[in-house]
Amino acid sequence: MLDKLDLKKTADEKSYEKTLESYKERLGILQRTLHDQKVPVIIVFEGWNTAGITMAVHEIVHALDPRGYALHAIEKPAQEERARPFLWRFWLRIPARGRIALFARSWYSRAISEEMQKHTWEKSLKSRIDQINTFERQLHDDGTVMVKFFLHISKEEQKLRLEERERNPLTAWLVTPAIWNIHRHYDDSLPLIYDFIQKTDTDYAPWTVVEATDRKYAILKIYSSLVKTLEKKTAAATEGKGKKSKPKEVNKPKKNPVKRHAEPEKVYTKDELQETLGTLQIEMLELHYLLFKRRIPLIIAYEGWDAAGKGGNITRVTRYMNPLGYYVVPIAAPTEHEMQYHYLRRFIKHFPTGGDIAIFDRSWYGRVLVERVEGFCSEYDWQRAYGEINEMEEEFLTSSGGGIVKFWLEISKDEQLKRFQQRAGDPLKIYKITEDDWWNREKWDLYDEAVDEMLARTSTGIAPWTVVESNDKWFARVKALKTIIAAAQNLL
Amino acid sequence: MLDKLDLKKTADEKSYEKTLESYKERLGILQRTLHDQKVPVIIVFEGWNTAGITMAVHEIVHALDPRGYALHAIEKPAQEERARPFLWRFWLRIPARGRIALFARSWYSRAISEEMQKHTWEKSLKSRIDQINTFERQLHDDGTVMVKFFLHISKEEQKLRLEERERNPLTAWLVTPAIWNIHRHYDDSLPLIYDFIQKTDTDYAPWTVVEATDRKYAILKIYSSLVKTLEKKTAAATEGKGKKSKPKEVNKPKKNPVKRHAEPEKVYTKDELQETLGTLQIEMLELHYLLFKRRIPLIIAYEGWDAAGKGGNITRVTRYMNPLGYYVVPIAAPTEHEMQYHYLRRFIKHFPTGGDIAIFDRSWYGRVLVERVEGFCSEYDWQRAYGEINEMEEEFLTSSGGGIVKFWLEISKDEQLKRFQQRAGDPLKIYKITEDDWWNREKWDLYDEAVDEMLARTSTGIAPWTVVESNDKWFARVKALKTIIAAAQNLL
Repeated sequence: MLDKLDLKKTADEKSYEKTLESYKERLGILQRTLHDQKVPVIIVFEGWNTAGITMAVHEIVHALDPRGYALHAIEKPAQEERARPFLWRFWLRIPARGRIALFARSWYSRAISEEMQKHTWEKSLKSRIDQINTFERQLHDDGTVMVKFFLHISKEEQKLRLEERERNPLTAWLVTPAIWNIHRHYDDSLPLIYDFIQKTDTDYAPWTVVEATDRKYAILKIYSSLVKTLEKKTAAATEGKGKKSKPKEVNKPKKNPVKRHAEPEKVYTKDELQETLGTLQIEMLELHYLLFKRRIPLIIAYEGWDAAGKGGNITRVTRYMNPLGYYVVPIAAPTEHEMQYHYLRRFIKHFPTGGDIAIFDRSWYGRVLVERVEGFCSEYDWQRAYGEINEMEEEFLTSSGGGIVKFWLEISKDEQLKRFQQRAGDPLKIYKITEDDWWNREKWDLYDEAVDEMLARTSTGIAPWTVVESNDKWFARVKALKTIIAAAQNLL
Repeated sequence: MLDKLDLKKTADEKSYEKTLESYKERLGILQRTLHDQKVPVIIVFEGWNTAGITMAVHEIVHALDPRGYALHAIEKPAQEERARPFLWRFWLRIPARGRIALFARSWYSRAISEEMQKHTWEKSLKSRIDQINTFERQLHDDGTVMVKFFLHISKEEQKLRLEERERNPLTAWLVTPAIWNIHRHYDDSLPLIYDFIQKTDTDYAPWTVVEATDRKYAILKIYSSLVKTLEKKTAAATEGKGKKSKPKEVNKPKKNPVKRHAEPEKVYTKDELQETLGTLQIEMLELHYLLFKRRIPLIIAYEGWDAAGKGGNITRVTRYMNPLGYYVVPIAAPTEHEMQYHYLRRFIKHFPTGGDIAIFDRSWYGRVLVERVEGFCSEYDWQRAYGEINEMEEEFLTSSGGGIVKFWLEISKDEQLKRFQQRAGDPLKIYKITEDDWWNREKWDLYDEAVDEMLARTSTGIAPWTVVESNDKWFARVKALKTIIAAAQNLL
């Protein structure tokens, strides 16, 4: 691909300005149309040093309304970001619906430079490529248009340009020894880049390799490809085509192998349970120190019926944890702002950095529970979510070396009624019970079905669900903490 | 203050648990009341190493509903934050209305440790203290309750505790040589801390110094002080008292010394202006490189009548700027989320880091223009804003070593009408004109008065306004770019 390109391609000088102006006008109109159609757009610029990424970005942004785009210059990750999964900072930078995100270098540069320096934290290049393809496919499935450009020049051309920059007093300081060092490794990195481009050149996020020796030719090729892709998208959106194809039914099991029980198998006295809990809390205190010291992150997700005791469970589990080493993320309905993005973004944002424990009080599983049952998202959306969630959890686990514990707090329908009535009768707890709770209870059977399918489809080998029998609150607290302790020990 | 404390104070063992439980219950109720009253709360914990900040935070958060608080452990600033004004990262962490933010160490630790290491970027301790007092007062004026605790132990006690930690295999790794080094400087830092506490012990954000040798005594003192302060606040809020006092009228000038003209004094041809603009754009390209190289940030704020040409002006001014070194921040009405915070936060968030140019298309001056005229905020709010804005701009300038350029784009009422009509008649521009524009035009005189007062009260020596005569768009572009160039040269 890269080695067969004719790098000498040039643009017709005479018509250059005129053609460029017409492309700019079309892009300006497209931006407004895509904004109205609420289509998010990602434009990635990659390429050799000095190939003209800055110039290309420059020419594109000047056709755009600044209110509708963001430009992300991707440098080396900041310290905070290095402690996060690979794609974390890119998830945070995806565009809202109707907006354009331009990336001057991207996840590709980071992956390639890590490979070149052998600083990868993962076993193989393949896993990196899989992660990237998954990321781009998930955004595509959510309606994002993705356009990727690789600006290509020869090693000789690069040498000439670096020398030119060195002669210019304004730019000389940019040509550091590190830049020359990368230049010297041009031939070594060529096969790696070739490999990356080939394996990430997908239907949903195709590459355009741009011969960038002649700058005007490069600009016109970028514009022509970009405008064509976006015009195709707006036309499809107008005709109502697009993302509405049904997702492949992957691994849909015939029945849920994860059994749910509200009553524990064995009955303990409250005193027994409280004593055990006390011992476990001290054990957890020590484990938490060790996780913190070794910078291992842990996610604990709580789901369960209303009044199943999530809050009390969390309070007891964290009783002796150092508050500087864990945080609780309470999940409510998404805000208007959050709804402008892929639904996973608001959870990924709160994923823990090395050494932290993030406890989610409700989680991303809302997509296949409340959002499914209440019709807050389409069937296409929640059907797709099982696979996306599994992918997200796998990405976190492989990228971070951390762990995920997922709890379903099960209570019986009778027990729920009892607790609702208790809350309604207690002036200190009445704020905990709302009309929504009673409405949800009406839909018990629909939720029941959704829970079964969730457990069946997302209880994976690396991130299994634990059902916590919660009719007995004290038993539930002991079981949750025991499960967390076992998971933590496994990570050490 | 610190030297006269009786550090031997102890809590009554017997009643400790009972008293603590009753405080926790009261704090839990207070949290819900403050949430309903939409009062933001900041609780700051400072103190000597090992004095028990973590323990104190621990005891407080366990009385709180995790959905309503955030805990910020303030470590050394990350790289990104070091390039920002001192208070930037704290502004980003202020609580939303009805929420509690706990700071385990805060702006005080940062200021004190900088002083101790003589790494201050500013001329004097005094300016740091002034900044902190301003910050806390602004939050107070916006309705925030602020409670600050300093946990005090003696040097001998600290030595004992460090040695104890060293003996415990779980905590030994925390006692680094750097920690011992800080311990050895206990006596040197005492006067500095004393000074800080004394000068920041204000009516609106008082300190409580806590004798922390006896841990139980310390916890009870913290709880008692916290609960008392918050109960006072909720009672005042219930009675409708609180922030509604009228702000001091500071520096209110009799008349606006900044004259506004729509027509330039001298008439140039369009060709002349375009040629000059071309030369200036090249000049700006070089200056931008130098600002970037020396890591000097620059803020450019555009305000002006509707259709005054802000967008076109920005496009021309940035024509040859490297897009990786500037960004445009389009300011629209605040979102629901943004309205939960002090109004300045959403602007400070976008302030530039060293080497960047941030161009605000409309700005924080909306408070004293559209929000004043349309009644989107109370008179108390916008009257106070002049002073707050001046303080914010001064804080940015002194903290960052950067510059601020503020443009008012003036056109005549007739010229505006002409442009509205042109837009309405052009299918490519009709999207630019909305009913709001016509409504605002109806209120021309009210806006006129607001602009005059704004120019009069916020055109300071360090951040003056530049009126840009914009009936002639090309003249306006030349004048804006000339002004920016002069400001940039001034910074180099």
